[in-house]
Amino acid sequence: MDLVFDHDTLGQRVLFGSGKAAENLAAEVARRRARAVMLIASEAEMQIAASVSSDIEIALTYHDVAPHVPLEKAEKARAAAAEAGIDLLVCVGGGSTTGLAKAIAMTSRLPIIAVPTTYAGSEATNVWGLTEASRKTTGVDDAVLPRTVIYDVELTYSLPAELSVASGLNALAHCIDSMWAPRADPINQALAAEGIRALSHGLPLIKVDPRNRRGREQALYGAYLSAVAFASAGSGLHHKICHVLGGAYNMPHAETHAVVLTYVLALNAPAAPEAATRIAAAFGSETAVEGLSSLREKLDAPRALKDYGLAETDLPEAGRLILPVVPPLNPTPVTQENLQQLLHAAWAGTEPGNI
Amino acid sequence: MDLVFDHDTLGQRVLFGSGKAAENLAAEVARRRARAVMLIASEAEMQIAASVSSDIEIALTYHDVAPHVPLEKAEKARAAAAEAGIDLLVCVGGGSTTGLAKAIAMTSRLPIIAVPTTYAGSEATNVWGLTEASRKTTGVDDAVLPRTVIYDVELTYSLPAELSVASGLNALAHCIDSMWAPRADPINQALAAEGIRALSHGLPLIKVDPRNRRGREQALYGAYLSAVAFASAGSGLHHKICHVLGGAYNMPHAETHAVVLTYVLALNAPAAPEAATRIAAAFGSETAVEGLSSLREKLDAPRALKDYGLAETDLPEAGRLILPVVPPLNPTPVTQENLQQLLHAAWAGTEPGNI
Repeated sequence: MDLVFDHDTLGQRVLFGSGKAAENLAAEVARRRARAVMLIASEAEMQIAASVSSDIEIALTYHDVAPHVPLEKAEKARAAAAEAGIDLLVCVGGGSTTGLAKAIAMTSRLPIIAVPTTYAGSEATNVWGLTEASRKTTGVDDAVLPRTVIYDVELTYSLPAELSVASGLNALAHCIDSMWAPRADPINQALAAEGIRALSHGLPLIKVDPRNRRGREQALYGAYLSAVAFASAGSGLHHKICHVLGGAYNMPHAETHAVVLTYVLALNAPAAPEAATRIAAAFGSETAVEGLSSLREKLDAPRALKDYGLAETDLPEAGRLILPVVPPLNPTPVTQENLQQLLHAAWAGTEPGNI
Repeated sequence: MDLVFDHDTLGQRVLFGSGKAAENLAAEVARRRARAVMLIASEAEMQIAASVSSDIEIALTYHDVAPHVPLEKAEKARAAAAEAGIDLLVCVGGGSTTGLAKAIAMTSRLPIIAVPTTYAGSEATNVWGLTEASRKTTGVDDAVLPRTVIYDVELTYSLPAELSVASGLNALAHCIDSMWAPRADPINQALAAEGIRALSHGLPLIKVDPRNRRGREQALYGAYLSAVAFASAGSGLHHKICHVLGGAYNMPHAETHAVVLTYVLALNAPAAPEAATRIAAAFGSETAVEGLSSLREKLDAPRALKDYGLAETDLPEAGRLILPVVPPLNPTPVTQENLQQLLHAAWAGTEPGNI
């Protein structure tokens, strides 16, 4: 097949080092010659943020952070930044905190240094989101991409092991779905494969010992790559299914992803041999499906959607909602029939080889 | 071992498609709303350049291109661009042509769209070079990084198969040396591995049939990745050795790289097991050394430095010149002794397993 692709590589600096966040942040602020830093962190993470920023001067500390970036909070934060003459945004936290920094950068074009404390991945994308009257708007703007990301696993130790593993499986789903998403190309496939390799090494180590540094490092690194690959490749079949299940049946995010991924992989792998080879190699397994199954066993991952509130009687309607949003170039053509089989298997927790 | 790295991802758009250069260029020029395009191409490539740019309006066509970008030529080109009120540089050609566009961008900050016709790789880096009184100066400046690169293998068919294979082996050396170069990190290792995979698929196809499209595509794609990885990781042991042999003994570039690579890989692989695993996986071979050997056989690659003008009596001096420039963190510590063994084996063309 001809090699045809358009790939946008987003320019970004990544400083990765355990226990080095404060030092790396101070060096980065100095390198940028910033004179008025706005430090953004939620109340809950103010202590972490204070310790990370102990070596830099802060012009404004801001903690009015809320999930999904409500527009009025974004506007207040923008006004505060303007009033204080801010020239650099530093955000310490998860997706909501990074999201608020992005909302400020959107209008002010101020640079962001992001210091993530979770595996949210927002720090590696140029996607912003704002919520007004409970309606979420998202968009893409290179100005909101953090110029520098500082990763330090010591900031992630407050994430419980269970949540780390769940977020890690979500990141793994981003990697695997990137293999056949609408804008999949060999570059983001290579990065996604590296993400799978890192996550499949790291997550079992965290499962055994939540403070295993190597495990945390590999998981955080893998989560970063999953965001890079996903932002580049877009949403594939897996994410479309999970989005419908989450929206229409209020299914829990992490568990739904963890279950559905198995069946999407089993459906697509035979029709996407190159992607399947990359995935298997990244897992270090014979086949892609085996690699995922073996990881899921080690992690004692969620097995069946019926355990998380989905009723068998919901499946026909779910299929009708999903079919119109299936990406047209999904490797295995999706029909109402194979979609129902997939949903039923995911609902029941059937072995993926047997659907 | 702890995961510690600083990685700068350079932001760039890559449009890859065979036979699509003219269409992609027109779309890119329109997207950028450029009004005064300067088209840069050597006399020899003017025909290719004219065909690639047939769908866009050109304000100034410029063909005074020379190897290593002589400063006076750079200054003339800068003046011409300023006089014509240019707002976009389009370069069609190899390293010298891209180099001239970079020299203009250095001072004018004008954006560049690069359309490569060789595997030079300069289009994927932020490195510029200028020559004054036969002294070459190089530097790094993000302003010289082409904003968009348009790859089209049909523009590379004028490269003879032999030269394509030689350039491809040079690109392979960039990938392999990136695994342990001073700024090596897992991100550029993953991209380098993808480059090895692509080059090892593509080059044998070109060897058999110079116009094999899939072969040309994989080789060009691999050459791009090799430049990305090398620019990020820096020069490792292999490049330090080749640089000395080229400079002090006037050894031919491509052949020297092709020979030396084998022995550097054999020296470093045992001390860099993770890199060796990545290389082997990328070749699809049992070991890294086997993968390279098997590719070299298929390509009938150069085997011994003695075939290209190096005398056995040069080896002691060569070793003395190389030792001080060996990267301090090379996986296998380099001594005068193992360096002499390496050089002697490369000189004689000994099987790499037997040194």
